[in-house]
Amino acid sequence: MKLLSCGTGILFLLLSGLAVAGERPADIPEGMGVLPTTVPIPADNPMSKPKTELGKQLYFDPALSKSGHISCNSCHNLGTWGVDNQARSIGHKWQRGGRNAPTSFNSGFWSAQFWDGRAPQLEDQAKGPPMNPVEMADDSEEELMSRLKEAGYAPLFDKVFGKNSLSFDNMAKAIAAFERTLLTPDAPFDLYVQGKGNISTAAKRGMKKVAEIGCTSCHSGPLFTNNTYQQFLYGTDDGRKSVTGKAEDDHFFRVQSWRNVAMTAPYFHDGSVKTLSEAVRIMAKVQLDTKLSDSDVADIVAFLKTLTGKAPQVIYPVFPRPAGYALNWK
Amino acid sequence: MKLLSCGTGILFLLLSGLAVAGERPADIPEGMGVLPTTVPIPADNPMSKPKTELGKQLYFDPALSKSGHISCNSCHNLGTWGVDNQARSIGHKWQRGGRNAPTSFNSGFWSAQFWDGRAPQLEDQAKGPPMNPVEMADDSEEELMSRLKEAGYAPLFDKVFGKNSLSFDNMAKAIAAFERTLLTPDAPFDLYVQGKGNISTAAKRGMKKVAEIGCTSCHSGPLFTNNTYQQFLYGTDDGRKSVTGKAEDDHFFRVQSWRNVAMTAPYFHDGSVKTLSEAVRIMAKVQLDTKLSDSDVADIVAFLKTLTGKAPQVIYPVFPRPAGYALNWK
Repeated sequence: MKLLSCGTGILFLLLSGLAVAGERPADIPEGMGVLPTTVPIPADNPMSKPKTELGKQLYFDPALSKSGHISCNSCHNLGTWGVDNQARSIGHKWQRGGRNAPTSFNSGFWSAQFWDGRAPQLEDQAKGPPMNPVEMADDSEEELMSRLKEAGYAPLFDKVFGKNSLSFDNMAKAIAAFERTLLTPDAPFDLYVQGKGNISTAAKRGMKKVAEIGCTSCHSGPLFTNNTYQQFLYGTDDGRKSVTGKAEDDHFFRVQSWRNVAMTAPYFHDGSVKTLSEAVRIMAKVQLDTKLSDSDVADIVAFLKTLTGKAPQVIYPVFPRPAGYALNWK
Repeated sequence: MKLLSCGTGILFLLLSGLAVAGERPADIPEGMGVLPTTVPIPADNPMSKPKTELGKQLYFDPALSKSGHISCNSCHNLGTWGVDNQARSIGHKWQRGGRNAPTSFNSGFWSAQFWDGRAPQLEDQAKGPPMNPVEMADDSEEELMSRLKEAGYAPLFDKVFGKNSLSFDNMAKAIAAFERTLLTPDAPFDLYVQGKGNISTAAKRGMKKVAEIGCTSCHSGPLFTNNTYQQFLYGTDDGRKSVTGKAEDDHFFRVQSWRNVAMTAPYFHDGSVKTLSEAVRIMAKVQLDTKLSDSDVADIVAFLKTLTGKAPQVIYPVFPRPAGYALNWK
């Protein structure tokens, strides 16, 4: 009996230990959850290792720009959480972009791309910056394709997409496939949800506060965005109206994810707000007509910081240059 | 006896096989050899893993520039053999550099840095671009250090160099240490020298030709440079004279290595020559008063192409940003 009792005790401890370790803490508001480990993949652009490798080369390659100086990584730097920490990015001939550069991290989860959602998916988004005269400033798709051909890309495209497949569409597909690998798992919050780690008391207060005052009606779910457009009456940018032409879309923007938000300052579509506390304060006031106390702001910021995950580890690519290649020689 | 004879035969075959595989082919001109596997390390800047990791972060980090847009890697891109394939690089506010950007690959082997040798070693070189108004354009060392501190570098410096060690000197030391890891071993020529591979008949003709006409009196040894200054009466740049002020240094430049030269077009201090064949033709004429035939040029180019090694594999760093960091916010 003693032996049995002892054994039962150990069993109980083991079970209770397992239960606690794997259990979702009861204080986490409904809907919040762990960052998914896989992104939706479009049927016409399946993932493959050679494709994401090609996409990685293209992502880092300044040959995508007319000047040979600007790459996707210039503004969506993988060393700074997929952004450049500038209000508006520096582009061709030192022009500034029209809006703050959103992060490429976790971007495979969004149901539309750009602040105004003008690109339905990453494949469409990737075609924007090359043709934008203030970004990569390529004269035409043909000019860009001929540069990529000169730079040695044709055989790599052929390996991934089949014979004679170097094209603007396939360039975008490869980049999109690579971007779908840029996930940031294992944020302190994710570990907390899984009962594998803890977050501070302040962060827990912030977590409850954002649910209580209604932030999470839009910044909802494991991605902390419901992937909708919402009106944000702040600044002069008319947002989605510039895409649809409809008055009812005036000042509508995509709801941004909170994932890694502490690392992607400055904030808002115009990058006009430098600190996360100021961004929190403004959002609560403008969107929810709520004046937050300083301690509420501090708690919410503490919570948002728990949403910083692990940056993906990426081996810097060597570009497929033929011997003797000189880009934009003069 | 039969057994012994058979055994001797096998032994002979083994020895002869080993000898051929490991043997330096007799046709390789004296002095030419395999790229060394280690670079000279200055006594006051020993190598360590944390130091080269810090140096890698600094090398890729645009926070080194006033604009937050330009990194060492902008002009010395590890994806394009340590150069940017531009005649003269794009710098701060889209200004162009004064000379062609030399490669950072194998740069630990040179006895001086820059075309005019104005920096004795990599530690000195790394201090140049940040302070150059047409490159990274930092206002002062203090301004740069305060930006690196804001960007979260102080604890990383302290880990490598000791307490309160974030300084311009240590920044340069870390970058230099990282650059000393950027070696490109196992070029086809290196494998040929070691009896581990072959090069084309044209390349072998080129190899003999460069020795015969005298290229290798300066482009000598395993690095294909004797690390001296030589007069090159081409263009208007007065070269080393701008450093020493001495008339006898007019139009003197460091002898460039041939290692990876096929990948680092365009050529010469002003980047004025796009193709390697043209560069070969001009050098033979100007330096050696030798008019090369088209087939000699083709052979020499074929040989130079065998000097392209394996690019180093580098994991792209995540920079040490504190939460809420915004660089050059407005």
